[in-house]
Amino acid sequence: MILYYAPGACSQASHIALIEAEIPHRLVKVGRDRRTDDGADFNLINSKGYTPALDLGDGTILTENLAILVYIAEKSGKLLAKGGAERWRALEATTFMTTEIHRNFIPFFRGGTAQEKEKAAQTLLMRFGTISEQLGNKAFLVGEQMTIADCYLFVMLSWAAMMGVELPQPLSNHLTRMKSLPSVIKALSAEGLA
Amino acid sequence: MILYYAPGACSQASHIALIEAEIPHRLVKVGRDRRTDDGADFNLINSKGYTPALDLGDGTILTENLAILVYIAEKSGKLLAKGGAERWRALEATTFMTTEIHRNFIPFFRGGTAQEKEKAAQTLLMRFGTISEQLGNKAFLVGEQMTIADCYLFVMLSWAAMMGVELPQPLSNHLTRMKSLPSVIKALSAEGLA
Repeated sequence: MILYYAPGACSQASHIALIEAEIPHRLVKVGRDRRTDDGADFNLINSKGYTPALDLGDGTILTENLAILVYIAEKSGKLLAKGGAERWRALEATTFMTTEIHRNFIPFFRGGTAQEKEKAAQTLLMRFGTISEQLGNKAFLVGEQMTIADCYLFVMLSWAAMMGVELPQPLSNHLTRMKSLPSVIKALSAEGLA
Repeated sequence: MILYYAPGACSQASHIALIEAEIPHRLVKVGRDRRTDDGADFNLINSKGYTPALDLGDGTILTENLAILVYIAEKSGKLLAKGGAERWRALEATTFMTTEIHRNFIPFFRGGTAQEKEKAAQTLLMRFGTISEQLGNKAFLVGEQMTIADCYLFVMLSWAAMMGVELPQPLSNHLTRMKSLPSVIKALSAEGLA
């Protein structure tokens, strides 16, 4: 498989998941100019122009982070329970992060006004509060093991730290803890962010 | 099961899916004041305050539209292939609608400025263009039968028509066609929108 990624972007969630799932993969970096590091036009690979995109190995390109995360989980049998409450809580939390958390970072990345950023930061504090309550003092968001929700959460917490968005204490602790996991260390290093 | 919904909101996707999946359910309407039509405080049911929420029948409340849609599909064995390209294309399209299309309607619903609406409308035209190409002249977005992606798409197209957002012709045609489906007619009627 080939993961098309941008360093530190939300594609990092899929990257960590691939490592945790022990799925062999090759990384191809996509620059801001939409060129891959091997010189291809990324728009011809994913016409939507954004990462992540996953080449499933047969030339099929799967896009959309959540779909890729579920694919990795189902292919490997890891990171998402096959059924029961843990499956649905993990899928619910991952969806919440893609829709309610991720999008509130947009003003920070796309030159929003101070007012837009302040409003987004307040919404993020509320949304992170929901996740913080769910996490409590557990090691992972759902159940005893890492799920796709933790992969996405790590990226969202990294963005918050980078943008100076306030985090509840349990989530600051979680970010520190996650950074010490071998899969996360490996992903950051491979993305040139170590 | 109980579906907590707001008329015409994105919860309508889960509503149509429940009907298509032939899962017995009761509807409880949630007002703008966060009160249910049987007088309960909806914030005590879903602390995030928004619909849809699905009571799985044992008091467990599942939230987030995409998670609910996948739950309905896996419970019924309908609306989402168990594996293969059709599973991943449907999950990809549903994710795309929750993240890239839905959020661009926010300025229309939350009193955005004319400039914000114009910018959102342009993004929507591009995003709907992607879906329009995928749909072509097929009856459904993925494969031969309705999937969860079509349920979500119907609501997005309805919103576009309501807000005067331009739609590519294949999607205008699709909206008209979807409106004639028994499940859609039943859902609109049950929500008081017939």
